[in-house]
Amino acid sequence: MNYPNGKKNNVKQQSSDPKYGFSNRGMTLEDDINATNTFYLDRDKAIIHKKPTPVQIVNVHYPKRSAAVITEGYFKQASTTDYNGIYKHKYIDFEAKETKNKTRFPLANIHEHQIMHMKSIIDHGGVSFLIIRFAVYNETYYMPAESFIPLWDKQFNGGKKSIPYETIKEEGYVIPFHYQARVNYLEVIDKLYF
Amino acid sequence: MNYPNGKKNNVKQQSSDPKYGFSNRGMTLEDDINATNTFYLDRDKAIIHKKPTPVQIVNVHYPKRSAAVITEGYFKQASTTDYNGIYKHKYIDFEAKETKNKTRFPLANIHEHQIMHMKSIIDHGGVSFLIIRFAVYNETYYMPAESFIPLWDKQFNGGKKSIPYETIKEEGYVIPFHYQARVNYLEVIDKLYF
Repeated sequence: MNYPNGKKNNVKQQSSDPKYGFSNRGMTLEDDINATNTFYLDRDKAIIHKKPTPVQIVNVHYPKRSAAVITEGYFKQASTTDYNGIYKHKYIDFEAKETKNKTRFPLANIHEHQIMHMKSIIDHGGVSFLIIRFAVYNETYYMPAESFIPLWDKQFNGGKKSIPYETIKEEGYVIPFHYQARVNYLEVIDKLYF
Repeated sequence: MNYPNGKKNNVKQQSSDPKYGFSNRGMTLEDDINATNTFYLDRDKAIIHKKPTPVQIVNVHYPKRSAAVITEGYFKQASTTDYNGIYKHKYIDFEAKETKNKTRFPLANIHEHQIMHMKSIIDHGGVSFLIIRFAVYNETYYMPAESFIPLWDKQFNGGKKSIPYETIKEEGYVIPFHYQARVNYLEVIDKLYF
């Protein structure tokens, strides 16, 4: 297993550690990442935002003297990843997924055009990765696109439609918890790139 | 004058310049930039996307056997710029605005939090700029954030609420037209950074 800070870590430690305590209850991975990005922004550490959910707007109603109302819209599939921005001059681009599965990360969570996008980002000199949370263990991993893409590709060469939890433990990096940066992924980036 | 597609257009200006030809008819600045970004993507020159319009989703209806329908939503003000991505290892971030004004660019087009965002991007080593089109002249300018921000700030020190067209001509760079990259802004970035 890889640890960016060199510290040992395991599930039991996390759940028994008061810092994970009650404040984490009911927070989704997205909530945690948004809070983390806000913290980074406030501290002027990095500028990373979640892209808005893509909506196809079909009908808009314009009432007099009040705001326009979208009365018909549909969710569109995202063609890129959910988060991007800049950190220490580097272009940062990632996707985040949470699974309730205890033993595997199902690859259906990531679409082919997102993989294509991540490949391109690496080719153009950006930093691309996945944040994967195993909700049952409350463990969150940083999975470099460079490691994830070959695993994703394998499914078309007789491989399985999921990545074992153990593989993610081996090839990914535990993202440390910080009480304000709940998914403190910049620490992993620091370790890997700076 | 009205066209079958329902869009208004200034035919005289555009058709008088052969390089813009008829294919440009009815294209907004956003259309042109999207087409340019698609071209860049197809040629693997840069990965730049427009962020989806931020929508606050209030009500969603889930019909059986068909896609979820957003039945109530509102437009939210964007807290960042509209476009970002990566080019030659650099983080790229910009906003695009078209004006029908002949003599000035009204500063109300750009919000304060967008200015704050652009300042941050520069501080963190990114490339930030505005694309400003004077629709009447069919002229499109690349205005570096470094030049634009002080002009924007001036309005709070007794300055005007707009920037004269002449100033944009002087401090900005004409974005060349390319028949597939209609707003070929990477050419300006190449000149300024590479």
